Amino acid sequence: MSEFLTPGGLEEALREIGRTRYHNLHPFHRLLHGGKLDRGQVQAWALNRFYYQSRIPAKDAALLARLPTAELRREWRRRLEDHDGHETSPGGVARWKALAVGVGLDPEAVESTRLILPATRFAVDAYVNFVRERSILEAIASSLTEMFSPNIIAERVSGMLANYDWITQDTLAYFTPRLTQAPRDVDFALAYVQQHADTPEKQQAVLAALRFKCDVLWSQLDALYFAYVEPGFVPPGAFTPAPERQAAGTLA
Amino acid sequence: MSEFLTPGGLEEALREIGRTRYHNLHPFHRLLHGGKLDRGQVQAWALNRFYYQSRIPAKDAALLARLPTAELRREWRRRLEDHDGHETSPGGVARWKALAVGVGLDPEAVESTRLILPATRFAVDAYVNFVRERSILEAIASSLTEMFSPNIIAERVSGMLANYDWITQDTLAYFTPRLTQAPRDVDFALAYVQQHADTPEKQQAVLAALRFKCDVLWSQLDALYFAYVEPGFVPPGAFTPAPERQAAGTLA
Repeated sequence: MSEFLTPGGLEEALREIGRTRYHNLHPFHRLLHGGKLDRGQVQAWALNRFYYQSRIPAKDAALLARLPTAELRREWRRRLEDHDGHETSPGGVARWKALAVGVGLDPEAVESTRLILPATRFAVDAYVNFVRERSILEAIASSLTEMFSPNIIAERVSGMLANYDWITQDTLAYFTPRLTQAPRDVDFALAYVQQHADTPEKQQAVLAALRFKCDVLWSQLDALYFAYVEPGFVPPGAFTPAPERQAAGTLA
Repeated sequence: MSEFLTPGGLEEALREIGRTRYHNLHPFHRLLHGGKLDRGQVQAWALNRFYYQSRIPAKDAALLARLPTAELRREWRRRLEDHDGHETSPGGVARWKALAVGVGLDPEAVESTRLILPATRFAVDAYVNFVRERSILEAIASSLTEMFSPNIIAERVSGMLANYDWITQDTLAYFTPRLTQAPRDVDFALAYVQQHADTPEKQQAVLAALRFKCDVLWSQLDALYFAYVEPGFVPPGAFTPAPERQAAGTLA
């Protein structure tokens, strides 16, 4: 059915998915980096996104457990180090927790994840299960949303610093190492799928895996928008911002 | 921490979850049975809900595979018969497909599930995985939303027949057997959890399982409302109603 793509053609097809389905296109992202959200809405984003961050090591460990060679496992082990850190330096999960606390959330509420939207949990768990159950090729391909993350991070950090005077560079420290870690991860993962997707069917599976991962990210923003922007129906039991909600970008 | 409830007290705690978290309270349900949706919105509901229906036999088979006695397996096998039917009589999955086709959807589009919302897939898969991975007690408890379904079915059928002249009793044939199947299933499952939740911790696990299942149902309506009612942002690749959308309750 599908033609076999050159390595460059496969990369271009992956980038086309990013141009049409990556969550930088989502209205919630535009509100966030455009300074249009109040503090409670930014808190809801940070709180829910913590669950995603906290499950990334589980996702990576599930794949690591299935990789066949020490060389591949060493490559993937770096991701665990990035996210779980070392005794002397915090990893991505701890840095995201600091971000959530920095925007005013209670550390226990963040860590327990008991107030997140059910849709966040279902989407993130779907990602972990995908990596656990699908082929190694599809699991690695699903990480390729990192091809598009440097742009979104740059937009997000500059937009948030410019528009919310209660957010500091320190609070956003999560993002700085990601700007170098993500391209390094992508170099490996992209070369891997270019080499191992050696039939049209496998190439289509790679593209489908990236679309799936875009859905995972997109649906998290759908749920945030629905609950906290418009129409603003918070599901039973989920985080409700404190009543004294502040105007966009200003301190009370 | 929690006190041990009598069988009646446990049932009452379960019913309280239904009174506060069951999806008959969701604004989408009210629009649906109140005749406030157009045909495209009803189609989106039927299309997405088909995925839920189609995975119920997988959920029940996953539990059946783990049940320890022939007696329990026979009891649970009835659910497979209800949903997958017999050669001479269609089951719930086929009846739901007929409902979806009856509201104007293409049978292939329904069966392939390729146009459903990612959030629907994530929520439904979360349910199947819950039943696969949690204790048998929790898996059985998660079926107890059926305690509340006769009411919602009665509201839905009468509301839809009264308000949409393009929906017939025939199209809604899915629901008729459910009115007798659900109470029979509940009799067994409720007695099972009352007998086997013999510590406060197990009782709390039973209640948490029912809350989880309510979240699964609720978040499906959140996603439908977000994509097809307000603000009406359809995620990339999902079902888009035909352009000639009809006014609520009328034929074009």
